[in-house]
Amino acid sequence: MTASLETNVLPSGEDVSTAIAAGQRAYELDRKHVFHSWSAQAQIDPMPIIAAQGSYVWDGAGRKLLDFSSQLVNTNIGHQHPRVTAAIAAQAQKLATIAPQYANDARSECARLIAERTPGDLNRVFFTNGGADANEHAVRMARLHTGRYKVMTRYRSYHGGTDLAINMTGDPRRWRNDYGNSGMVHFDGPFLYRSVFNSENEQQECERALEHLERRVALEGPSTIAAIVLESVPGTAGIMVPPPGYMAGVREICDRYGIVFIADEVMAGFGRTGKWFAIQNFGTGRHGTGASGATGNDTVTPDLITFAKGVNSGYVPLGGVAINDAIADTFADVAYPGGLTYSGHPLATAAAVATIEAMESEGMIDNAARIGSDILGPGLRDLAARHDSVGEVRGLGVFWAIELVADAATKEPLAPYGGSSPAMNAIIATCKENGMLPFANFNRIHAVPPCNASDDEVREGLAILDRALDVADTFMK
Amino acid sequence: MTASLETNVLPSGEDVSTAIAAGQRAYELDRKHVFHSWSAQAQIDPMPIIAAQGSYVWDGAGRKLLDFSSQLVNTNIGHQHPRVTAAIAAQAQKLATIAPQYANDARSECARLIAERTPGDLNRVFFTNGGADANEHAVRMARLHTGRYKVMTRYRSYHGGTDLAINMTGDPRRWRNDYGNSGMVHFDGPFLYRSVFNSENEQQECERALEHLERRVALEGPSTIAAIVLESVPGTAGIMVPPPGYMAGVREICDRYGIVFIADEVMAGFGRTGKWFAIQNFGTGRHGTGASGATGNDTVTPDLITFAKGVNSGYVPLGGVAINDAIADTFADVAYPGGLTYSGHPLATAAAVATIEAMESEGMIDNAARIGSDILGPGLRDLAARHDSVGEVRGLGVFWAIELVADAATKEPLAPYGGSSPAMNAIIATCKENGMLPFANFNRIHAVPPCNASDDEVREGLAILDRALDVADTFMK
Repeated sequence: MTASLETNVLPSGEDVSTAIAAGQRAYELDRKHVFHSWSAQAQIDPMPIIAAQGSYVWDGAGRKLLDFSSQLVNTNIGHQHPRVTAAIAAQAQKLATIAPQYANDARSECARLIAERTPGDLNRVFFTNGGADANEHAVRMARLHTGRYKVMTRYRSYHGGTDLAINMTGDPRRWRNDYGNSGMVHFDGPFLYRSVFNSENEQQECERALEHLERRVALEGPSTIAAIVLESVPGTAGIMVPPPGYMAGVREICDRYGIVFIADEVMAGFGRTGKWFAIQNFGTGRHGTGASGATGNDTVTPDLITFAKGVNSGYVPLGGVAINDAIADTFADVAYPGGLTYSGHPLATAAAVATIEAMESEGMIDNAARIGSDILGPGLRDLAARHDSVGEVRGLGVFWAIELVADAATKEPLAPYGGSSPAMNAIIATCKENGMLPFANFNRIHAVPPCNASDDEVREGLAILDRALDVADTFMK
Repeated sequence: MTASLETNVLPSGEDVSTAIAAGQRAYELDRKHVFHSWSAQAQIDPMPIIAAQGSYVWDGAGRKLLDFSSQLVNTNIGHQHPRVTAAIAAQAQKLATIAPQYANDARSECARLIAERTPGDLNRVFFTNGGADANEHAVRMARLHTGRYKVMTRYRSYHGGTDLAINMTGDPRRWRNDYGNSGMVHFDGPFLYRSVFNSENEQQECERALEHLERRVALEGPSTIAAIVLESVPGTAGIMVPPPGYMAGVREICDRYGIVFIADEVMAGFGRTGKWFAIQNFGTGRHGTGASGATGNDTVTPDLITFAKGVNSGYVPLGGVAINDAIADTFADVAYPGGLTYSGHPLATAAAVATIEAMESEGMIDNAARIGSDILGPGLRDLAARHDSVGEVRGLGVFWAIELVADAATKEPLAPYGGSSPAMNAIIATCKENGMLPFANFNRIHAVPPCNASDDEVREGLAILDRALDVADTFMK
């Protein structure tokens, strides 16, 4: 469990005891000076991480932990990929920064690589610093393109932390930021396990969710709605893979009413679902193809795709919006009224170029798909069969949720919506004690290793989850 | 004017002709795939920049240009400072990224270095990706701390490009994003040259601007106002250095009504004005000390300071909010409802640590102050005396504006508010033809070299401005 003890050297080349001392100092200064995201500052106890490599991190005691969270589901190529860290060092040496108004080779090449991977005619890329501002700018483009203001997003979604983006969000993080004036209308998306439509199967859930959305559009007034924004596969909110035909149906509704369809691929994009973009899992057939049913050109095509995280595994802050020709044309001769100092940052885009090339040349997209279908999916279904506390497992690629319940019949969650519980805290602690960093949200544990995780690493994660679910089972009613 | 022709090698070590070819390809791909900030996409012609070093950049033809813009007023240590590029490479090799919930040595050390330089008890730092989200989060903190919604900001200001930040902004970039529901109230700040208060001198302008602000607070309702946000020295909007006593007066108004005082130091901070933070130029005396009158502890202390740009010269995207103890305490036991994947990014904060250390050890703050008082200030005043088109020059440190007019008596600007003009285009073109990148906004040219510019470089910039102002003079009425 400890770092290469035979040498006392971390993967970075640092001496372990030196790094442990640095981690201790990092902790002390953190408690004095660092204000943390989404936290009650006096009630947190931040674990130092002193090194990372591939699918592993080392904690403040020098203990090696399997990173089954990919941090915040962003290190899609794992930690410290040598090709990307070398590209960052090389770009730093060449040209660290340049303002957005100039032409820069790293930015241009990155835009090309992304545009070549997006479906349809999403040929242009506006670069931002992260996912939140990507969604902010996508909404701005949609509003100006349509001349409409309202934006529809689903409950059980996350779209970012800035004011507009958190108001797009359909989870409790919105509540304390919601002053009722952001122009957002929330609707229910498909989620069979906790269906609000009383559906009995995926097809019914799909049809009823589409009917609900179209009715909501009609009641809000189609001529008032600029955009419908959906995570292609909702992430932190629960990895509810849309049923076959749903995304195609949303596309049809948008087309019918002149609404811009924005696919948020911040967490789901860049290999996470076993495709470059998660939307590429969904075919255009209204009742036919669904997850993994899309092939080649038979892909639902949104008007805008937002991305961040996996685009360069978060090695350098980067996000963006891929834009179709019609919306780009709106800003051909009238200025787009938005921007930022670091748009298309050379260091960030150079890291993305290296990441995309590494994912491509090392077959990471296919690996993620194969892990999902051959190891992680079957392994999680086996855990679900053996642990009563598992209400459902669902996902694809390296993007899976384990939904934990206190009662299998009532589906009472093991922690309340928006909260935690002693049960969930015990499960998370068990994962860590057994050498794994989990991703947890409310009553769920997500199994989200990197796209290039090995079979053995995924099996190691499943074995640790097995032990944690033993603990979960003790909290059943 | 061309790169080291004797060797045909750029400062990065790249062969010039190779880099020129790469710049050409960057341009072609840019026009196909890159969507640019604040631009009509079909009407721009982005200049490739193929290399940069210190106060200079090289354009797509291999021509060396003096960067008198510091890009978007962010490269405060100049381009490619070896200490910072080496720190980026080292951190990339060690640990490129880690999620915000962990403790990390680069992040902790960066927070310490910033907290030690802020005035008063601004002891904690929330890290963001840039200046816009820094301002978004500062407003969020103020709203939750006070339980109030409205925010007051001045006309002629810029606070960022995301939805809330652009609505804080008091310049024309807000207009197309303003749906009248952001909770912002704009007021007039002090600006003697174009006084809306009909003032005749700085003291009168200060008193009248404060009276105006307090009346506006009274009319809006003090109990409804969460924050007053001011750039300590407004940047892109025109570098209007507040008169002595103004910032102290704003602090008093905030104290009187329980309003949070947010100082936006995104452009003005980290050495730009010859101090670590621009607010440190302003003493607490209501009618006494002013610019450069503050010494040591006699500094107006805001409740929150937002920063970005100069914190690491933009080498890696980074911003943040420095938070005083009272506001931090609000989120001690109740979660702060905001966050982002890259908060406290190791690569970004490691670059900031190296930047702050380099600025400190190389005396860049003092150099910026000295350049302002000894070379740039006197040089610009000399240009103003010799060119009729110069209505006013104003600034401090390496942060100066040249206000250009078509008529000295009426002060008619050489380009309309929010627009450009053939005159301004000709002036900008002259700067570039003579080997300099200027920063231009409406009817102004800003002289904003790096904090570590040499005397000769600044004199070179002044000489080029002299030629450009010859052109400006020909457009006088």
